[in-house]
Amino acid sequence: MNHSTNNNDRKTIEFWFDLGSNYSYLTAMRIEDLAGNLGVDVVWKPFLLGPIFQSFGWDSSPFVLQKQKGEYTWKDMERQAHKHGIAWNKPSTFPRRAILPTRVAILGRNEKWIGDFVRATMARNFVEDKDLDTEDAVREVLAAINVNADLVIAQAQSDENKQRLRHATETAADLGIFGAPMFFVGGEMFWGNDRLEDALAYANSQSQ
Amino acid sequence: MNHSTNNNDRKTIEFWFDLGSNYSYLTAMRIEDLAGNLGVDVVWKPFLLGPIFQSFGWDSSPFVLQKQKGEYTWKDMERQAHKHGIAWNKPSTFPRRAILPTRVAILGRNEKWIGDFVRATMARNFVEDKDLDTEDAVREVLAAINVNADLVIAQAQSDENKQRLRHATETAADLGIFGAPMFFVGGEMFWGNDRLEDALAYANSQSQ
Repeated sequence: MNHSTNNNDRKTIEFWFDLGSNYSYLTAMRIEDLAGNLGVDVVWKPFLLGPIFQSFGWDSSPFVLQKQKGEYTWKDMERQAHKHGIAWNKPSTFPRRAILPTRVAILGRNEKWIGDFVRATMARNFVEDKDLDTEDAVREVLAAINVNADLVIAQAQSDENKQRLRHATETAADLGIFGAPMFFVGGEMFWGNDRLEDALAYANSQSQ
Repeated sequence: MNHSTNNNDRKTIEFWFDLGSNYSYLTAMRIEDLAGNLGVDVVWKPFLLGPIFQSFGWDSSPFVLQKQKGEYTWKDMERQAHKHGIAWNKPSTFPRRAILPTRVAILGRNEKWIGDFVRATMARNFVEDKDLDTEDAVREVLAAINVNADLVIAQAQSDENKQRLRHATETAADLGIFGAPMFFVGGEMFWGNDRLEDALAYANSQSQ
């Protein structure tokens, strides 16, 4: 894997996320601050969970397919968001499609605006309860973070960039990623917002 | 539900667990000390996850059925056990049957020896890598904690006690329990060893 923003002398954590994933949201709102405090760089790794769940024979999120777990999840989200001081409203649609914004995230994953874009997109879903997967929606988000929407949306929809996202999702599957958020630090994999602190501590412990 | 050890003036946490569950093990080794520090009483609630998984159409643990999640789980267990200073060896058989020990746990759930019995049984599985579901195995565990094995094993195998375990598992299903460990504090449900501290903090915050 080639991370163009990586320097060999910086500690890094790979943050694999799906823009529609509620637990990815709890991480997205926290990771840059926590990593920054430790001097660890975040490598943003957007991918689509849908094809991975389909490869398990599932046609939706386990939070939809397993009624009891789904009901618990919304309660847990409310408590966890409160605990971390993160705004939260249960979305009226779950999971929300986010193909176009994920293509934008893939395009911009090494840009300075990637964190702002991810947070604004996810807050649109998990705070404002608005759809994500339209040009207008993406345009609003990009405008709010001062990014040239025309240019970025055109590039995001190029065949080359669509292929980039397919490749990212295939790579996720090859790495054994079965949910999100997932963190990689060197060869070590950590699953879930609950492991963010452990993954960062491990990244921080690595010799440079 | 009637808990004969509950007094109305004590704060309590219900700990629902399956003796074969690896994440229940991480909780079993920690809960009495953590709860004791807060003045919270542990109400031990043994049940069988197997019938609950079967009701979802699963014929084993999700850690067996989902290869990627299973592989991750063993890595996670190693790291979590290390983090908490808990002995751990990956068992050569998973999940291990534990019907007889669970019947003993149901019989003794309000006895002073329940914590010792649960910890010794689970350590047998997750440290010593030994089978659990034989009379000899249960006898060894009971002898090690100075409990009259003949008496307890006879009572555990009575029809009345077998029915008690069936009833506990049905109650777990009715409560929406879909995994273990699960905690109840009042009407609030918390899932997983990762939520033990949150559940205890919530129990501690409840007015008596």
